[in-house]
Amino acid sequence: MSNLLDILKTKKVVDLTHTLNESFPGLVLPPEMGQVATFKKEQICRYDEKGPGWYWNNFTVGEHFGTHFDAPSHWVTGKDQLNNTVDQIPVENMIAGACVIDASAEVAKNPDFVLTPEFIQEWEKQHGDLEKGSWVLFRTDWSKKTLDAAFTNTDENGLNHTPGPNKEAVEYMISKDVLGFGVETVNTDAGMSFTWEFQLPCHTLMHGAGKYGLQCLKNLDQLPPKGAVIVAAPLKIEDGSGSPLRVLAIV
Amino acid sequence: MSNLLDILKTKKVVDLTHTLNESFPGLVLPPEMGQVATFKKEQICRYDEKGPGWYWNNFTVGEHFGTHFDAPSHWVTGKDQLNNTVDQIPVENMIAGACVIDASAEVAKNPDFVLTPEFIQEWEKQHGDLEKGSWVLFRTDWSKKTLDAAFTNTDENGLNHTPGPNKEAVEYMISKDVLGFGVETVNTDAGMSFTWEFQLPCHTLMHGAGKYGLQCLKNLDQLPPKGAVIVAAPLKIEDGSGSPLRVLAIV
Ligand SMILES: [Mn+2]
Ligand SMILES: [Mn+2]
Repeated sequence: MSNLLDILKTKKVVDLTHTLNESFPGLVLPPEMGQVATFKKEQICRYDEKGPGWYWNNFTVGEHFGTHFDAPSHWVTGKDQLNNTVDQIPVENMIAGACVIDASAEVAKNPDFVLTPEFIQEWEKQHGDLEKGSWVLFRTDWSKKTLDAAFTNTDENGLNHTPGPNKEAVEYMISKDVLGFGVETVNTDAGMSFTWEFQLPCHTLMHGAGKYGLQCLKNLDQLPPKGAVIVAAPLKIEDGSGSPLRVLAIV
Repeated sequence: MSNLLDILKTKKVVDLTHTLNESFPGLVLPPEMGQVATFKKEQICRYDEKGPGWYWNNFTVGEHFGTHFDAPSHWVTGKDQLNNTVDQIPVENMIAGACVIDASAEVAKNPDFVLTPEFIQEWEKQHGDLEKGSWVLFRTDWSKKTLDAAFTNTDENGLNHTPGPNKEAVEYMISKDVLGFGVETVNTDAGMSFTWEFQLPCHTLMHGAGKYGLQCLKNLDQLPPKGAVIVAAPLKIEDGSGSPLRVLAIV
């Protein structure tokens, strides 16, 4: 058992998390829809008359802001799944392996790059099968963009040009019984998937299958294709659909 | 490396976290002081006209509410420590061992129980020395109280009758270079330490030495005296003094 700690201490911990602050970009939906709160921090005191010895803040944020976790209840297709909220998902799932699929070269050329089963299978030829119970992490280097309009990459029609999987790729990942799908963008689906015949396939099918999502990850370029252990433990928000969280990789 | 995941999968994960909801009790300071926000959740939509396919919430909370982490900058004595905020503390420290000191029998008899160096040394005789870089977790079974007035246990003078370490115990833990001190109550210090000659020794000395705190832990009774691995990764709040978080133990 101290054996486990000894092994862990020989590993490197990589922080896959963006800093939570007031300038981090949030997803903006059409105005008739409800909107996610961007991060706001209010200082209670800082070694002053409101508390001479201490410093602390209150803050407001959306469950789906910054580096964050999507639980199955986030989507209507997942509403009848067991243990579908962040307070109910099994804690065992908060520590899992990762298969990191690198499409950074393709996304550099085409922000609307679509991940297909063929692309995943090409990765599997090199690195072995996707692993049951592991995260699929989609490396696009999107996290290296400036955290402003370039990050959401919205066009004049309000559509986001960001990469994501097609329906068949999502079905393929589900057939492999992965834990979920994690991305560097603010959406596990391609921005343009709003216009597809089968809209938002990753949200719709993954959560419908009881799988999870991670968004706004960074430092995926520091992970091996296989072998990293991901710690992704959301806040225990009662009946929560998701949560900002600290995501760590042990490599 | 997949070796690490294989080992982890043979272990049990224990959730040391209370559920975040609107009835969880927060610390109340004298009225002239700034106050920590209790948890408030506001639904954005739930499969309705504000978002037909999805469910999500915004929420407001204090950095020091619910099961949470204290960074050195929380206290004035830690204000000049390096990496003293939750966005700057080394991620390696978010995975660490634990020494669990059981005073549940003593606290059942006396809610003002004071942890002393002698009590710790008695524990060390049975279980070996406190370990450098490990959490000291103070098991009191306080988390089994109802989450209401019994939890903060405030008397008619506004003083909280809850257990904690004396100055000498804190100095002893620091001399062993532990990572920090974690408790089941809402305060790493004894409630009555407000009245001591050296007030709030755990906050004052631990944070002054660059050490951390964890509060409102539960399920410490499921941990061995030594050998558990604690994952305590706070939100990456810019310049944050602390954070609600999910705390897991791997046993
Ligand atoms: Mn989300
Ligand atoms: Mn605190």
